Amino acid sequence: MAGNNFGKIFNLTSFGESHGKAIGVIVDGCPSGFDLNKNDIEKQLNRRKPNQSQITTSRKESDKVEILSGVMNGKTLGTPITLIVFNKDQKSKDYSQLKNIFRPGHGDLTYEQKYKIRDWRGGGRASARETLARVAAGAIAQKYLKEKIGMRFLSFTKQIHNIKAKLNLKNLTSEKIESNEVRCPDKKTAVKMIELIKKTAQEGDSLGGIVSCVIKNPPSGLGEPVFDKLSADLAKAMMSINAVKGFEIGAGFQAAELKGSQNNDRFILNKNKKIKTKTNNSGGILAGISNGQDITFNVAFKPVPTIGKNQKTLTKQKKVVDFKAQGRHDPCVVPRAVPIVDAMAAITVMDHFLRNKIYS
Amino acid sequence: MAGNNFGKIFNLTSFGESHGKAIGVIVDGCPSGFDLNKNDIEKQLNRRKPNQSQITTSRKESDKVEILSGVMNGKTLGTPITLIVFNKDQKSKDYSQLKNIFRPGHGDLTYEQKYKIRDWRGGGRASARETLARVAAGAIAQKYLKEKIGMRFLSFTKQIHNIKAKLNLKNLTSEKIESNEVRCPDKKTAVKMIELIKKTAQEGDSLGGIVSCVIKNPPSGLGEPVFDKLSADLAKAMMSINAVKGFEIGAGFQAAELKGSQNNDRFILNKNKKIKTKTNNSGGILAGISNGQDITFNVAFKPVPTIGKNQKTLTKQKKVVDFKAQGRHDPCVVPRAVPIVDAMAAITVMDHFLRNKIYS
Amino acid sequence: MAGNNFGKIFNLTSFGESHGKAIGVIVDGCPSGFDLNKNDIEKQLNRRKPNQSQITTSRKESDKVEILSGVMNGKTLGTPITLIVFNKDQKSKDYSQLKNIFRPGHGDLTYEQKYKIRDWRGGGRASARETLARVAAGAIAQKYLKEKIGMRFLSFTKQIHNIKAKLNLKNLTSEKIESNEVRCPDKKTAVKMIELIKKTAQEGDSLGGIVSCVIKNPPSGLGEPVFDKLSADLAKAMMSINAVKGFEIGAGFQAAELKGSQNNDRFILNKNKKIKTKTNNSGGILAGISNGQDITFNVAFKPVPTIGKNQKTLTKQKKVVDFKAQGRHDPCVVPRAVPIVDAMAAITVMDHFLRNKIYS
Amino acid sequence: MAGNNFGKIFNLTSFGESHGKAIGVIVDGCPSGFDLNKNDIEKQLNRRKPNQSQITTSRKESDKVEILSGVMNGKTLGTPITLIVFNKDQKSKDYSQLKNIFRPGHGDLTYEQKYKIRDWRGGGRASARETLARVAAGAIAQKYLKEKIGMRFLSFTKQIHNIKAKLNLKNLTSEKIESNEVRCPDKKTAVKMIELIKKTAQEGDSLGGIVSCVIKNPPSGLGEPVFDKLSADLAKAMMSINAVKGFEIGAGFQAAELKGSQNNDRFILNKNKKIKTKTNNSGGILAGISNGQDITFNVAFKPVPTIGKNQKTLTKQKKVVDFKAQGRHDPCVVPRAVPIVDAMAAITVMDHFLRNKIYS
Repeated sequence: MAGNNFGKIFNLTSFGESHGKAIGVIVDGCPSGFDLNKNDIEKQLNRRKPNQSQITTSRKESDKVEILSGVMNGKTLGTPITLIVFNKDQKSKDYSQLKNIFRPGHGDLTYEQKYKIRDWRGGGRASARETLARVAAGAIAQKYLKEKIGMRFLSFTKQIHNIKAKLNLKNLTSEKIESNEVRCPDKKTAVKMIELIKKTAQEGDSLGGIVSCVIKNPPSGLGEPVFDKLSADLAKAMMSINAVKGFEIGAGFQAAELKGSQNNDRFILNKNKKIKTKTNNSGGILAGISNGQDITFNVAFKPVPTIGKNQKTLTKQKKVVDFKAQGRHDPCVVPRAVPIVDAMAAITVMDHFLRNKIYS
Repeated sequence: MAGNNFGKIFNLTSFGESHGKAIGVIVDGCPSGFDLNKNDIEKQLNRRKPNQSQITTSRKESDKVEILSGVMNGKTLGTPITLIVFNKDQKSKDYSQLKNIFRPGHGDLTYEQKYKIRDWRGGGRASARETLARVAAGAIAQKYLKEKIGMRFLSFTKQIHNIKAKLNLKNLTSEKIESNEVRCPDKKTAVKMIELIKKTAQEGDSLGGIVSCVIKNPPSGLGEPVFDKLSADLAKAMMSINAVKGFEIGAGFQAAELKGSQNNDRFILNKNKKIKTKTNNSGGILAGISNGQDITFNVAFKPVPTIGKNQKTLTKQKKVVDFKAQGRHDPCVVPRAVPIVDAMAAITVMDHFLRNKIYS
Repeated sequence: MAGNNFGKIFNLTSFGESHGKAIGVIVDGCPSGFDLNKNDIEKQLNRRKPNQSQITTSRKESDKVEILSGVMNGKTLGTPITLIVFNKDQKSKDYSQLKNIFRPGHGDLTYEQKYKIRDWRGGGRASARETLARVAAGAIAQKYLKEKIGMRFLSFTKQIHNIKAKLNLKNLTSEKIESNEVRCPDKKTAVKMIELIKKTAQEGDSLGGIVSCVIKNPPSGLGEPVFDKLSADLAKAMMSINAVKGFEIGAGFQAAELKGSQNNDRFILNKNKKIKTKTNNSGGILAGISNGQDITFNVAFKPVPTIGKNQKTLTKQKKVVDFKAQGRHDPCVVPRAVPIVDAMAAITVMDHFLRNKIYS
Repeated sequence: MAGNNFGKIFNLTSFGESHGKAIGVIVDGCPSGFDLNKNDIEKQLNRRKPNQSQITTSRKESDKVEILSGVMNGKTLGTPITLIVFNKDQKSKDYSQLKNIFRPGHGDLTYEQKYKIRDWRGGGRASARETLARVAAGAIAQKYLKEKIGMRFLSFTKQIHNIKAKLNLKNLTSEKIESNEVRCPDKKTAVKMIELIKKTAQEGDSLGGIVSCVIKNPPSGLGEPVFDKLSADLAKAMMSINAVKGFEIGAGFQAAELKGSQNNDRFILNKNKKIKTKTNNSGGILAGISNGQDITFNVAFKPVPTIGKNQKTLTKQKKVVDFKAQGRHDPCVVPRAVPIVDAMAAITVMDHFLRNKIYS
C-alpha cells in the first residue's frame, strides 16, 4: 500500500535509503527447488553498478549482495528470498548542505510535502540507488525464465539525446548489446553517443535517451484481461523506474498515425504450422495477452536532474538560492538503465507467468 | 488476480461480456455520506455512448444505468456501490460467422490461447463495451474530487492520425472540449479532423490518434514512492484501456532529447508564497509524487482493428480466409475515448487521494 | 480494502443491502471451461433460505439467482461470474420504527459510528441476508472441488444450546445431515434440539449452537506458511460469518488440556503405503498446511440478537426506550448456518487449491 | 500470496529460516515522524526470548535487533522499516539426524509435500523462531497506538493444561502480568502452573494452555463489514501463530449456550453520556466493528510437539523409527506466547486503525 511492493505472485518488497545501512529486497513467491546463488545476482548487479566505464559516474560502489534467507545449499526453498547490499561508509560525506534545499527535478520537495520529514542525505528512498533491489530481484526472474522456458530479455540503448540507433532487431544479441559501454548494438551510433555523453559531462550537463526492450521467446497467454493487461503491467513497471517519462509498446505513438489496414498484424502460419503474425505492430500483445511473438517496447528517460551547472532554486524556508551539484554524477543514466529495464521486464513477466499457471 | 479489479482503496471490480446480459461494476471504498444519483453517472456515460454524432458509429445503445446497492436516499452508505447496464437485445444478431475466425488486431486468438474457450459474440470480455464500467465508476470519482477539493479532469483529442491540434493549455475548458464532435478544443483543427474521419469511414478504414489529459488543481503529496508512483499508476490505468499503445507524462518522449539544464523545472513562489514550478516538464509529478502543478499526460490510441476493408486471416482450424467486418463501427474511437481517459485518470487519482489520507 | 472482498485467487466481491434492490456477488478467478448453471447455485441457496421448515422463520423469500456474466452455453469463460438475487417488495414494509433505534446485539450502533449514516431498513449491509452471496459463490467452489478432485464439505449441527450430538464422523454423509430439519446427523439428539427450538420460539427468545465441519478428501499441500496458514484462513472465513463467536480446529480448545505425548498424531502408512496419521488431533493441518487427512473444525454461533422479548435500549438521541422485535425471525440460525459454513469452507479451500497450483 | 505478508496498510513481510543467516521483517506503511529506536523493539523481544526464566528453554539466544531502514535520527521516515536479527552460530550444531525424519506434530511432512524440499535444520521457516519477526513489528504498533490514542494490549496466561486462573479483568495491569514467570496475573494459580510445568518438564512431556487478551481503550469504528470484520482479522492473526488451535471472542463458545435475552449486551450511557454496554459478551465488537468497549478474546495453544519422550514416526523413506527430541526445549510455550499474542493483536488493530482513517 505504501508503494514498496510489486507483483502479485512473484512479489517484491524493497527497502532502504541511499545513505542508510542497507538496500535490499524480499522476493516472495519464487518456486522452490530452483538453483540460485550469489553469482547469479551479482552478474546483473555488475551491469548496473557505477564506475563501470568512462561514461558513468566514477563513484565507486563495491556492492556485494548477500542472500539472507530462502536458499539452502544453492536451492530455493519456496520461502522468501532476502537479498541485501550493505551500504559502505554511508557517513563518510557531509550532506548537510542538502538538508534544507529543494533540488530542481528531484523528489526533495514532494517527499517533504508528503511525509513532513525526509532523508536528505543524497536522495534517501527516492535515490536511484534503490533500483539495485530491482536488478537483484530481476536476476532471479531472468534466470528462471531462461532456464525453464528459454526466454531472454534484450534491452539496449536506442537513443541518446537526439542520436538514434539504426537496428535490425532480428540479429539482436546480448553480446552486441554489451560490446560497448553505451549498450547500443549499433556500433557506429554507439561511438557518437559516447562522444556526446563525454562532451556533455564536460559542460556539467546531462542527457536523456530511450531504452528499447525485446523479450525473446515469450509463451502465449500471459497477461490478464481488462485491468492487468501485460502491456499495462509492463507500463507500470517501467514508469516506476526513476527518471522514466514515457512508455510505448509495439508501434506505440506511431500507431496513432497508421490506419487500421496498415496497423493490423496479419495472422499467418510459420513452418511448424503455428500461428504467428506477419508484422508485429502490436508488440507481441493483443487485448493485453501475449500472442507468442517477441514483446517489444520503448522507455523514455529524462536527463538526470543532478547537473554540475548552477541552478536557482528554493530552500525549505522559501529563500531563493544558487545550487550546483557537488561530486561525481552520471551525465547520462541510460546505459546503466538498460539492466534495470531488463530486470523490471523480467519481474513483470515472471509474475504473469506464475499467474498463468493457476488456470492452465 | 484475474485482471478485473483496479485500485487499492477506491476499488473497482468490473464484469460482463459485450453480448451477455449486462455490463457492470462494483465500486468499493467510496466514502459514505456523499450525494450520488443515476444522473451523475449517465452524464458521463452519454459522453461515451455510440451514435452521439456523425463521426461515431450509428449503432444505438440506450444504456441506462441502475444503482443496485450502496446508495440510500441519494447518499452513499460506505458500502459497495453496484452500477449495472443491462444489454438490450443481445441475441438479436447472428454472430456465428465470428465463431471460428481470429480477427486481425483483436483478442480472439489470445483469449482462445489463454482460456481454451471464448465468447465469440462480438468481442466478449475484450470488447470496448467493457469501458462503460470504467466511465460509470469514473463518474463517481470525478464528482467526488470536484466537489471535495475542486479537481477537474480535462481530456481532449490532441491528434487524429497526423493532424495535430495547436493549443494553449491555460485556457482549456470543458466547454471548449465539448464544443465539437471530435472533442478537440482547437476548432480549426477539429474541422480537419472531422473531415479526415469521414473520408476514412468511406474508405472502410480506421484512424488512431492521441488523447491529452490535463488534471487541474491536484493536491500535492499524491502517489507513493518506488513502485506505486502516481505516474506509474496513471500509465497502467491508461495502458489498460482498449487500443492504447503509448503513454507519456509531462515532456514525455521529448524529455529524452532535452538536457538536464533545460528539462529541470525551476522552483519559484507564486503570489500566495506557495512553491510552484516555472515550467512543467515533469507533468506535475516529481519522484512519483504530485507537486501541486497540473498533471499532464498523453495517451496514444491505435486505429481500431475493425475495418470494412477485406483482410486475410486464419480460422481456428488454421485455414486462410477473407474477412471483412460487417455492421457499423467507429472509424476512429479517439473522440469517444476522451471520457474514458477522464474516467481512468479520476479513478487513479481518487485511489491515491484516499491512500494519502492514511498518513496525513 | 472496505471489507467486501474475500480470497486472493478465487476472489469474491459481495454487494447489496438487505432491503436494497439486490444482493449479489462477483466471483473472479474461476477456471474456464467448467460446467455451471443456475441450478448448481440454487441447490445450495435452497438449503439456506428461510421458511424451509417449521423451526426456521416463516418469512418467505423466493430467491431466484441470475447469472449475469462469465458463463456462456453452460460453461465458465474464465471471466468474472456475476450472481445476483433481486430483492422482492423491498419497500412493502414500514421499517421507520428502526430508524433511530440501536437494537441490542446488532450492528446499528457501530455502523452509525463508523459511517455516520446507515441503511436502517432491517440491517442493511450487516443483515445475515448478505450470506446469500457467500452460499451462491460457495456453490461454485463446492461443485468444482467435488468434480475435479472428489472433495466434499460436510457441515452439520453439533450442538444447539446445551444439547450436544453424539457422533461417529466416519459414517457421516450428506444424506444423514439433511435427514432432519436441524441438520444434526444424530437423529435422537436432533429431536431434542427441534423441541427446544420450538419451545424457545414460543418464549420469544433465541438459541446459539455449534456447527461442525468435516472436509473429506482434501489434497495435501494446501495452505501457505506463516500468515496464510489454511487454518488461519478458515478461521477468518468462519469468523466473518454473522453471529460467529468462536473457531477451533482439530482438538481445538481441548488441545490446551492435552500433553504433547497425547496430542501428537503419529504418522503411519495406510494400505496403499501413503503416509497418514493414526489420530487427527491436528484437524488435518500441520504447520498451516493440509496433510491429506480430513480437515475438521467447529464454529460457535451466538443466539441471534433479534428476540420477541422486550429489551431496554438507546435511541440515536440517547433516550432509553423499550424495544421488541416485530415480525417473524429465526429462533435459532444454526440449521441455516450449516450451508453457510460449507460455502465459506469451500471458498477458502478453493482459493488455496488454486494458489497451490502456482508452485506445483 | 506465498503467506509471508500480513496486513493491508500496516503491512509486514517476514523472512528467514530458524537456522539461516537471519530472521527479519519489513514493516511498511508506518506513519512518518514517529519516535522509534532499537530499545522500543528489544523491550518486547526480551519478553519473548528463551531462557528468561526457569520454566522456559535454557537455550540462549542473544537476539539483538538492528533497524536497517526507515528510521533516521530516531524518527520514522514513512519508508519501509526493516528489522533484522542475525542468527548466531547457526552452523554449530549437527541437525543431520533430522534430515530424513518427519517429526510428529511438526510441519516436516507438509513442507516436504508442498515444496519437495525443506530446510531440515530445526524447523526452518516453520520454526517458532519466526515469531520473533512478529514481536518486533508488533512493538512498533503497540508503541504507536499507546502514544497516539492510549490503547494498551494486556495478554496473559489464563490456563495451563487444566489449571485455570480466576481473574477480575477490571484490575488487570501489565505489572501484574509480568509479576511472575508464567505471566498469570492470578498469583496463587501462577504458582500451581509453574509447578506443573516443572514437573512436566522432568517427565519429558509438554503442556498447552490458553492466552487471554484484553485490549484496553480501543476507539469505536475499527473493522470493516462483511469479510474484514475486526473479529475475523484477529482470528486469522491468532490462528497464524504456531501451535494455536482455537480462537474465541467475548463470550465465545459459551455464547452458544446462552439465550439471546442473556447474551445481548444492553446499551447504556456512562457518566460522560457516551454509549457503552452494561455487559460485554460481544467482546467489544458488534457486526465486526469495534464499539469502544474493551476487546477481549482467548487463544488456545496446543502442547508443543517437541518432547523428550520416545515417539514412533516415519522417515522420508517410509520406515518406522524411534524419535526422541534432543537438546533443550520449552515444556510449555504459553508464557512466551503472551507477547506474541500482544504483538499480533497490535498489528491487526494498527492496520484497522489506519484503514479507518481513510474514511473518517
